[in-house]
Amino acid sequence: VSSPKRLEPIITLTTDFGTESPYTAAMKGVIFGVNPDARLIDLTHQIGPQNLRHAAFFLAGAIPYFPMQTVHVIVVDPGVGTERPLLYVNVAGHRLLVPDNGCWTELARRIGVAPEVIILKERRFWRESVSSTFHGKDILSPVAGHLSLGIDPHELGPAANRWEDLILPSVLVTESRIQGEVLFVDHFGNMITNITRENLERLGEKISVRVGKTEICRQVRTYGEAEPGAVVTLISSFGLLEIAERNGNVSKRLNAEIGTPVVVTSK
Amino acid sequence: VSSPKRLEPIITLTTDFGTESPYTAAMKGVIFGVNPDARLIDLTHQIGPQNLRHAAFFLAGAIPYFPMQTVHVIVVDPGVGTERPLLYVNVAGHRLLVPDNGCWTELARRIGVAPEVIILKERRFWRESVSSTFHGKDILSPVAGHLSLGIDPHELGPAANRWEDLILPSVLVTESRIQGEVLFVDHFGNMITNITRENLERLGEKISVRVGKTEICRQVRTYGEAEPGAVVTLISSFGLLEIAERNGNVSKRLNAEIGTPVVVTSK
Amino acid sequence: VSSPKRLEPIITLTTDFGTESPYTAAMKGVIFGVNPDARLIDLTHQIGPQNLRHAAFFLAGAIPYFPMQTVHVIVVDPGVGTERPLLYVNVAGHRLLVPDNGCWTELARRIGVAPEVIILKERRFWRESVSSTFHGKDILSPVAGHLSLGIDPHELGPAANRWEDLILPSVLVTESRIQGEVLFVDHFGNMITNITRENLERLGEKISVRVGKTEICRQVRTYGEAEPGAVVTLISSFGLLEIAERNGNVSKRLNAEIGTPVVVTSK
Repeated sequence: VSSPKRLEPIITLTTDFGTESPYTAAMKGVIFGVNPDARLIDLTHQIGPQNLRHAAFFLAGAIPYFPMQTVHVIVVDPGVGTERPLLYVNVAGHRLLVPDNGCWTELARRIGVAPEVIILKERRFWRESVSSTFHGKDILSPVAGHLSLGIDPHELGPAANRWEDLILPSVLVTESRIQGEVLFVDHFGNMITNITRENLERLGEKISVRVGKTEICRQVRTYGEAEPGAVVTLISSFGLLEIAERNGNVSKRLNAEIGTPVVVTSK
Repeated sequence: VSSPKRLEPIITLTTDFGTESPYTAAMKGVIFGVNPDARLIDLTHQIGPQNLRHAAFFLAGAIPYFPMQTVHVIVVDPGVGTERPLLYVNVAGHRLLVPDNGCWTELARRIGVAPEVIILKERRFWRESVSSTFHGKDILSPVAGHLSLGIDPHELGPAANRWEDLILPSVLVTESRIQGEVLFVDHFGNMITNITRENLERLGEKISVRVGKTEICRQVRTYGEAEPGAVVTLISSFGLLEIAERNGNVSKRLNAEIGTPVVVTSK
Repeated sequence: VSSPKRLEPIITLTTDFGTESPYTAAMKGVIFGVNPDARLIDLTHQIGPQNLRHAAFFLAGAIPYFPMQTVHVIVVDPGVGTERPLLYVNVAGHRLLVPDNGCWTELARRIGVAPEVIILKERRFWRESVSSTFHGKDILSPVAGHLSLGIDPHELGPAANRWEDLILPSVLVTESRIQGEVLFVDHFGNMITNITRENLERLGEKISVRVGKTEICRQVRTYGEAEPGAVVTLISSFGLLEIAERNGNVSKRLNAEIGTPVVVTSK
């Protein structure tokens, strides 16, 4: 606010709504209704329907790059209309508005700072009429607009000290073997696993990665080292073991998907 | 303009162009060419190709939430290049730029205020060279830029007193039976019908909903009341009868789509 | 900067990332981290995976409409992690940040002005830690942020005098026959070929267009002249021969795709 050109904080949107339905557009309208100068940015509307693990992976991979004070609205909400609360979460300055379903806790773990969590209770920041099926529009959107205008988050409701926790599947580590699984398949078909760089370092230089009946022995630092069509493993930009085919779709080729087991052994 | 921070009105874009083609991007470029400070927001580029009913449903579901003075550019235009006019429409302060094909009239009916309609005629607000196939870029986009800069809409052309009207399919109501149809299938597979809350109230508390050979007797207030996998009916956030499967795709399950008949009887 | 309301230049994003992965969102976060007041606009994230021809067609069709000084970030990068440089390109005031893979050279040819090309070398404008697989996030995004803040592009690195050139397939022209091919299939299934208006003018008024075994003799000025279901040819808004079916998908109907030969003869 000290600089004359400083604009208000960005509001980002992450949903599983797709864009063919008017839901996301309605949320944008509500936000502008509260703050006509809001600065809206789409992160994605292609989270898999009600897919909390997809949302968790997405948020952990994207939110840390945003500047503090950005307001992130997340609407992946399989429990809409139940008693599950809606939350304001502050993790090291990243501010999220999100249903209490755990899709943000992996992000908090990676950042490694205790979150501040508030339950949205104060109806004066909501739309006057709240539907039972679309809290993203009727509660999260207007609250985001008010936050972007500078209200104190503590006005939104009481502090929470319990919330849903979503724990991504963990790896099984023995001395010479790591068993993990595919956590995410990206647009290119590259498969990101839950096996970390640190997990791999225990196995030494020479490793073999098995997916179904396919054994992959070629490790590269980057896609460009592989010849087109080669299946390789590398450490992704997330710091996780990734299985990729240069300029090809390895997920289709190996008939593998989210949850497919991945076994790494030392050679 | 009185407040130093007040920015110009938002321009929204709604098209059936998808995003893999350069059409939408070209429109954005043209708008910024007219108003470099324009504030552009995508509503959707996933209206079904030339699907005026989809556009009508989308606009009626999204536009009412936006603040007055927003400029909404709509390019779903099966008649591009014919003599069909292009219109500026003002419905209760919502400003639309749209081909004269009726995709906005359902919105006007729901808002219930007589629209002001102007035919775009003044070529000085258009691109200098107007293609015969892409009026969205050559006419609607520059006009949107000029509107966002504050020109008087009456400069755009003469008033219109006739326009195309698109009427969504209506329901057939008798004392104990309502016959409607599926109006829209959302990203989750939820089916929104054209049967209103008011229609249903005539039938009393106990109703049965039939889609093809499937009878649905479970009415809920919100998805969360149903167990996963249950097919239920509820009143959607649009105030319309909706058929849903909690955390599932009921449209695929019942093999139903836009236009599929839906019959409600009292029990 | 002379006007108090003049905002900073727009930054556009064109990628092949889709939006289900966190990659694009992470790039947006990085840009806002460098310039919290950045004005981001999505052009597309639906370029075909690693499809440089698609990117070339898209950029040539969209970028010319943008005002000068816009910063266009393009991440279609089959060679990520190899020694291929990353470039700053200025073509007649359009500023691009792009891997050196030629996807921008068709745009430069159409504009017809010699480009200024700089190799990104100055690591002080990059993220501190640069991954080997995601230069879009670690190099192009922060550089875009800095450019939008007004740094002199010459600070980014040394001038380049050689770069990859991508040449779209050319047409074969004889006195009474032109052989070209499908360059792009849009969201509607319309097929845009590489045959120009100038190519066609050599053949005279009466022409016949052949795609596989289908002969198309109906030439129109605009889709609206054709009856629904008719297959016609016209000159697209790009100035190229286009094959279209009014309110239908001609690409599916003729089983044709990018690369399918198109032969025009005079009748």
